[in-house]
Formats: sequence, C-alpha cells, structure tokens
Amino acid sequence: MREPAARADLLVPADRLRARLEALLSAWTRPDHAARTAEAMVEADLMGIDSHGITLVPLYADLVRDGRIAREPEIRVVHAFGAVATIDGGGGFGHAPSVEAMDLAIEKARAFGIGAVAVRGSNHYGAAGVYALRAARAGLIGLSTSAVHLPSIVPVFGREPRLGTNPIAFAAPGARGAPFLLDIATSTIAIGKLKLAARAGARLPEGWAVDTAGNPQHDPNQALADRLMTPLGGTRAMGGHKGYGLAAMVEILSTLLPGASYAPLRAADAQRYDVGHFHLAIHPEAFRPRGGFGEDLDAFLACLRETAPAAGHERVLAPGDPEHAIRATRSREGIPVPRVLADQIGAIARGWDIDFRLDDPAE
Amino acid sequence: MREPAARADLLVPADRLRARLEALLSAWTRPDHAARTAEAMVEADLMGIDSHGITLVPLYADLVRDGRIAREPEIRVVHAFGAVATIDGGGGFGHAPSVEAMDLAIEKARAFGIGAVAVRGSNHYGAAGVYALRAARAGLIGLSTSAVHLPSIVPVFGREPRLGTNPIAFAAPGARGAPFLLDIATSTIAIGKLKLAARAGARLPEGWAVDTAGNPQHDPNQALADRLMTPLGGTRAMGGHKGYGLAAMVEILSTLLPGASYAPLRAADAQRYDVGHFHLAIHPEAFRPRGGFGEDLDAFLACLRETAPAAGHERVLAPGDPEHAIRATRSREGIPVPRVLADQIGAIARGWDIDFRLDDPAE
Repeated sequence: MREPAARADLLVPADRLRARLEALLSAWTRPDHAARTAEAMVEADLMGIDSHGITLVPLYADLVRDGRIAREPEIRVVHAFGAVATIDGGGGFGHAPSVEAMDLAIEKARAFGIGAVAVRGSNHYGAAGVYALRAARAGLIGLSTSAVHLPSIVPVFGREPRLGTNPIAFAAPGARGAPFLLDIATSTIAIGKLKLAARAGARLPEGWAVDTAGNPQHDPNQALADRLMTPLGGTRAMGGHKGYGLAAMVEILSTLLPGASYAPLRAADAQRYDVGHFHLAIHPEAFRPRGGFGEDLDAFLACLRETAPAAGHERVLAPGDPEHAIRATRSREGIPVPRVLADQIGAIARGWDIDFRLDDPAE
Repeated sequence: MREPAARADLLVPADRLRARLEALLSAWTRPDHAARTAEAMVEADLMGIDSHGITLVPLYADLVRDGRIAREPEIRVVHAFGAVATIDGGGGFGHAPSVEAMDLAIEKARAFGIGAVAVRGSNHYGAAGVYALRAARAGLIGLSTSAVHLPSIVPVFGREPRLGTNPIAFAAPGARGAPFLLDIATSTIAIGKLKLAARAGARLPEGWAVDTAGNPQHDPNQALADRLMTPLGGTRAMGGHKGYGLAAMVEILSTLLPGASYAPLRAADAQRYDVGHFHLAIHPEAFRPRGGFGEDLDAFLACLRETAPAAGHERVLAPGDPEHAIRATRSREGIPVPRVLADQIGAIARGWDIDFRLDDPAE
C-alpha cells in the first residue's frame, strides 16, 4: 500500500516505466515473457495496485537469484477438453502463462459461452485484477484466482498458516461506463497495512493478525515477523470462517484443479514452487442473446454510486471506481515511484548490466 | 440460527418431514415442484442450515398468500448456447428451477468440462449449498449464487441497502472423504444472529449492522427493525469493501447475467420479484485426465484439519465439516423442530386443509 504521490516520488510515464522494466526482465527471462510481465506489472501500478507492480522487482530478483524462476520456460497447453484447458507455465514468472490462459478462456467463452483455463508450474502472477480486466475489456466477464507460494492465512481457531493470501479478481464490462472490478486478497488486510502500522507505531486492531498461540496480535512489527494473517472477517464472530472458506475455495480452483503444489504439502527440497492459477471467462451474450447486459451493469453501478452516504462520508463508490480514477490520473501525470524504490531497483539492475534510469533522459 | 436440539424440540425423521412438507407445498404449487422444494428444504435442515429449511414455511405462506409466487409455473430453457443456458423459473419457488439448472450445468460440464446455467423469473431458492453439493455428489465442483428479493446489505460508506445477503456456495468432491462445502451469505452475519442477540439482550459489536445514518448499530432490536446489514468484513478497516464487492459480484452473476430484476430498480408495482440465480459445474477430470483431484482434495482438507489449534480451541475444522457432522447425527436421530414452529406451520397447513402432524403417528 503506497501513499498518493509524495514530494519525494518520481512521476514516471507508464511507457517509460514499461520499457525500463522490460529491459530488466529480459535479463531474467525470454524477451516475449519479459514484455508480458512488464505490461502486467505496469498495468497494476497504473490502477494504484502498488503492492503488485514494480514494488515486486526486489522480490523477483531474489527468486531469480535463488533459481526459483525458470529462465527459459516453455508454456504448454498440456490438456484441452471442450471449453477448458490446463496450461503448464514451465516454471517461469506467472504473468505470461496467465495472459495466455485468460486469452484462451476468452476464445473458449466466445465458442461455448464460458471458458476456463487453469495453470500449474507457475509463480507469482502479480495483480489478479489485470487478468479479470483483460476479459472485461474484451466484452466478457472475467474471474481470476491464484494460490501463493508462501502460506500466511491461519484457519479460524488455528495458529499455523495453511493458505496464501489467495486473491480473487472479478470484472464485468459495461455498455458505456467503465467495467466493474473487484480485486481482493482473501486475508482481512494486505501485508502493506502492517508495514504502514509499524511505521506509524500503531497498535493493530483485533482481527488483523494472530500470534504464535493463535491469540490476537497487536504489535505490527511482530505481525510482520510472524506473517500469521487472519482470513477476511478476522474473528469467528465477524465471519472469519467465511474468509477462510473463500481462501480455501481459491486454493481448490488454483492449485488442486490444475494439479499444482499445495504449499504446505510441497516437497521440502523442491526447487520450484509450482504455483497454480485459475482463469474463467463468461460471455454475457450467450445468456442474453438480445443484449442488455452492459446497459444493466451501467445502471447497477450507477445505483450503487447513488446510495445515500453515511454521516461523515461524501459518497459511495462502486467496486472498481478507485482503480479507474487512479488509472486516469496516472495515465496523464505518470506513475509515482518512491526514490528509495527507484534506487533499490537501479542497484539491482546495475548488477545485471541493465540501465534502469527512471528520470526523463532529456532532463 | 437454531440452537442444537433442545428438550422442547420434536425430533422428526427426515423422511417424515419431507413427506409432510411435500403435502403442504402441493397445496401451493405443482406436485413435481413441491417434491423438489421439499427435498431441498429438508436437505438444508439435515445439514444444520436451519435458517433455510422448514423455518421458511411461514415466509413462503405469506408469499403465496400475496400472489408473489406463481402457482402453476412453467420452467423453460429460454436460451442454450454451447456450455451455458438461461432458464426462466416461471415465477414459482426457486428450488425446482435451481435443481434443473444445476443438473443441466452438470450435464454440460460432462460434455465441455464446464457448464453454467443462470436462472431468472425465480424466487427464494433456500440454501445455496444444496445446489453446490448436488454437483459435488455427482463428482464435479459446484458453485451456486443467488440474489435476494429484499436488499439488506449497505455498501461501505453508505446508509441505504443496495444488495441482498447474496449467498455464495462452493462444493468440491473428495476421493474417499466428504466433499468440501462453503455456504455463506456475503453479509457479515445472518439475520438469525440479530435475533439471538435480541433474545439475550446483548449489545451488537461494531461491524454487524448500521443505523439509518450509517453509523454502527448496537441495538439488536433496532437492527432487526431496520435490516441494514454490513457486508462481510464489517467496517472498511476490517475489509468491508471486500464483502461489498463479493455481494455485488453475486448480483452480477445471478441477476444481470440472466436478465432478472435488480431489486432496487424493480418496478414498484411488479407483482413478481423476478429473482435470479447462477449455477456453475466444473469437471475436474477435464483439467486432470489422469485423475488425482479427489485424492488431492482429501489431502488438502486433512492438512487444514491438522492445523495446530489456537489456545483454548480443541481443533481446526475444514469447511463443510460442521454440516457433514450434523447431517450424520440428524440422519440417525431426526431433525429437531421447535414445537412453536411446528405449531405455527400446523396452523398454516390447517388453513389449506393439509395435515402437518410431525409427531410419530404410532405414538
């Protein structure tokens, strides 16, 4: 979670950021994968999903250094049957096989009304919303879910992590308005909120994280060290069993369906994480051949926005509104990149003999 | 939310309850629909989803009396395209068209790997989990969602209801073990919890409901009167925007996809609620032709159950475990029915010249 552009941030045009990122990623993977990965990462940054954009470069650098990422992956459709398929990502970054998977799901949805493609042999795929939106921009409903290589969600009444922050993204196209977009982790909060609380010296509310005995964790620094997050809902009284079930549903679709590795049962000496994803596309016109879905979606979102606001609030937003607003601003003004992050990535890039200067070359 | 069998409850064998219910429903709808509706309702009661079983008979009686339910509905597949279809429920109870929709989705998933059937022109369909489990018992993954005719969820930062408690159910089959089952409303809590709190004179925690200004509602009686529920997560700090988005996702799939009526925009003089549902089936073997999905699911659920429990808790449950345990007990011992409910339904039944005696005829 990064704050809005601060004085010390660089403001980098999306095209420049994408080009620099693609150059760096080309040192780590095939050029075609580097292009798709850079595109997906910058798309996340454009929408304000800062936790899943270029912030991840240092993590990705570690994965490459440790041999966790295949450098020359082959993406293969290993099974195809009717409206579904399974793709093997070949152990590379998760973005390229996910773009391919969603595009195949869209193609199948155009032919059969619905299409689903699951991915195994993959890795971190960035922001789930990028793939769901890809379907919505093609005029279809999109759903994308992913497992995560490191478990951090603790089941209700437990004290050990058993599920990743397992995201769900869902997008649907309007006729004239911007698409509906939901892009959430199935944990109560993102790790980034713990970092903000630690920086502010704040006490964590009950229901964000637990300690190693399974009791509420109030210390943000200890929460960051333990990474024992609650599922959405937080406590049982607030519906934590619902978030737990949703995180498990994501694991079933993303890991068990394509036959990827469920992290807690992964072989201890496995070099690759074998992460899985699930991508679904639905063609509204197959259900309503006379049309009307997009118009109904516009009216639905308008009705949500017209909800009378609670005391102290100016207005109610429809899911996706914040992302679309940030995207409009950043497309115009550039993507804010903290200087400390730019410097950190610059240093990583120099180690690979890549130029990663983000400031205007003409300046 | 009904307590475990209390001394004053009747314990009614499922077969008897189903037969009595079918007789009563036959006074209200076609015999074939009455049978399917009774079966779905008793299945909910067997699993302990008491809020969606025979507890609903008084509500259904009101809907019939008010002409909200078509008495001789025709269920029609109005569109079919590849792996998807749209069904019109003809304005009757939601259970029969939903059984038909899920069965058609299963058939399509066997042919195409995945199948989806949306329903419009329907009404309350009982427990979403009944339909998802129907797919799991056939060896497939099932997902079922439904809209609700009366909005009660208030968008984050709002003070008016814009979404129903919009349930999501998801089930997946094991190889030897019981299926995974998630069956949740996308509100933080069920209405039944407000009733329990009112009876106990308890103060509601922040994040269960809001008042007409959008502030936290602590009075359970006022919360029952206003029915302004929070989405899962409760407050913005606890992830309420996630539950809001999930409830909206359910509305898109259940209402907008089949072209049913979005309740806040429904014509004020509409006699029928025109509720919509969405049913999805996924064939695991289409993704993994060499098998292994069921075995992996068993191992996954076992791993969740083996999570070390938090201080003060005996063990961690996998989603579906409580329902399966209650089902085993109630199949053996009977379904607990509070005498006050039995009497209430008995009186309704007498008004339709139907015998609804739940105690053992031989006693």
